[in-house]
Amino acid sequence: MKVAFLGTGIMGGPMAVNLVKAGHDVTVWNRTAAKAQLVQDACGARVAISPAEAAADCQIVWICVSDTAAVERVLLAEDGVLGVARPGLLVADSSTISPVASQNFAARLRERGADLVDCPVTGSKRGAEAGELIFIVGGKQESIERLEPLFSAMGQRVFAIGGNGMGLVAKLAMNLNIALIFQGFAEGLVLAEKGGVRVRQMLEIIGATMLRSGVVEYKGPFIERRDFTANFPLALMLKDIHLMLDFARENRVKLPALETVEEIYTVAAEEGLAGADYAAILTLLEKWAGLRSPAPTPVEAR
Amino acid sequence: MKVAFLGTGIMGGPMAVNLVKAGHDVTVWNRTAAKAQLVQDACGARVAISPAEAAADCQIVWICVSDTAAVERVLLAEDGVLGVARPGLLVADSSTISPVASQNFAARLRERGADLVDCPVTGSKRGAEAGELIFIVGGKQESIERLEPLFSAMGQRVFAIGGNGMGLVAKLAMNLNIALIFQGFAEGLVLAEKGGVRVRQMLEIIGATMLRSGVVEYKGPFIERRDFTANFPLALMLKDIHLMLDFARENRVKLPALETVEEIYTVAAEEGLAGADYAAILTLLEKWAGLRSPAPTPVEAR
Repeated sequence: MKVAFLGTGIMGGPMAVNLVKAGHDVTVWNRTAAKAQLVQDACGARVAISPAEAAADCQIVWICVSDTAAVERVLLAEDGVLGVARPGLLVADSSTISPVASQNFAARLRERGADLVDCPVTGSKRGAEAGELIFIVGGKQESIERLEPLFSAMGQRVFAIGGNGMGLVAKLAMNLNIALIFQGFAEGLVLAEKGGVRVRQMLEIIGATMLRSGVVEYKGPFIERRDFTANFPLALMLKDIHLMLDFARENRVKLPALETVEEIYTVAAEEGLAGADYAAILTLLEKWAGLRSPAPTPVEAR
Repeated sequence: MKVAFLGTGIMGGPMAVNLVKAGHDVTVWNRTAAKAQLVQDACGARVAISPAEAAADCQIVWICVSDTAAVERVLLAEDGVLGVARPGLLVADSSTISPVASQNFAARLRERGADLVDCPVTGSKRGAEAGELIFIVGGKQESIERLEPLFSAMGQRVFAIGGNGMGLVAKLAMNLNIALIFQGFAEGLVLAEKGGVRVRQMLEIIGATMLRSGVVEYKGPFIERRDFTANFPLALMLKDIHLMLDFARENRVKLPALETVEEIYTVAAEEGLAGADYAAILTLLEKWAGLRSPAPTPVEAR
């Protein structure tokens, strides 16, 4: 299929490469052109100079950018996708953004006969590279079916949740789980360490009991190596937490533990951890407990 | 071995039965005598009228009661174990209590030539019945070794963490993980439900991704059936949360998300959920979100 891939960062880059490897005809665009160039170097994809140029003669536009404002720019700016939207054009948006904004974007595209599916992903950078992402999808059934060959090139599984925006709602609920699983792990670790229990002992206990989780299995080795290089940057998790709390407020839902986690992440970002992995929240708790020097590895230095 | 088993409730009852089944000579005592009687009916264990009587001619005293005050009563009351403590007597305490209090109890027993090992358990009622508990142990190595035949009669695994009190520190850190994993699950579920995502869909996504956890695997089916009968009563989880926060304060550790969870559990207890399973915290969040009528199944009514 002819695909325009807009946004070739940590997740989008390897996703676009996997589309090319699966035989699709891919044109990439990225706000910072150098990152689009990396994809061209890796797999020979064409590079476009604007979202509109990339989308002009494609059937599918795939978006993977960092936030609601970035999707808005890609779709609605003067050189955006909406300008070339036409019947048959299908936009798949893998960005984690506001569900309500996504519903509005879908409505704008439908006015031109095009359509939009929200299809945020889970599986981290590693899953993106391995083509093992999981897509959580909201939109019209026939549009979701059209995307099948592309989903299977980049991922291992598709959960079709319901109408527009519902993929995003489920994705936000997922990241809420991740943030709180990790928060419990980090607070537990600090408590245990203060009592003389070692990280390795806690990880063994967690792995052997009902405390085991995919999150700690994945993050545990990084924690042991004190490697806080961004895999899922803290700033992006904080952005997602804001989306969750916005959606909660709009829908009169009280999420008290998440509100506290939002405060902790805000402090962490202010203290220079925004570019580190969200797991670096542990270093802030350790600092508060007087346990270690903070100093996660600066991201840019690696 | 000759064992006095003190405290035959949800966990202690099946633990004592498993000791008898493994061929040990067990005398049981319980504050509410009827529960000790149930163990006698189930397996023929003798029933004693006081902790001291139960412990008088035993080599090992196993304790499994609900809180620090109950252990203090069992050990230090006029008819308590300390009165019959002598060289060679070994007390194994599976209650989840204050690590510092446990260290003090150990010191009192050592003055009489006896010893104490803290060996809190994990694995829930179901694990106690199946003899598949996991013991998290603090104390002297030689005392822990003496308990080996009893550990293996009741459990599947023993983690020897370090000196006295360290089993308890690790256990508190474990329950902190459990409380926050479940909190994330519950807050995520309420958010998702408000956006039209069904519980079954969230459980499927969780099971297929790095969000999967032993906690949600275990609790998921109960949540789907809306069965909040106490397996791990909310009041006991709240008691453990207080122990965590006490230990944190004593050691100058800040546990912000846990503090918020403590507030939520306190409200839940005030609203009549103390006797329900801790999973009933979900019903409180649902009520706050206007999602369902609260009404978990009253525990005593079943």
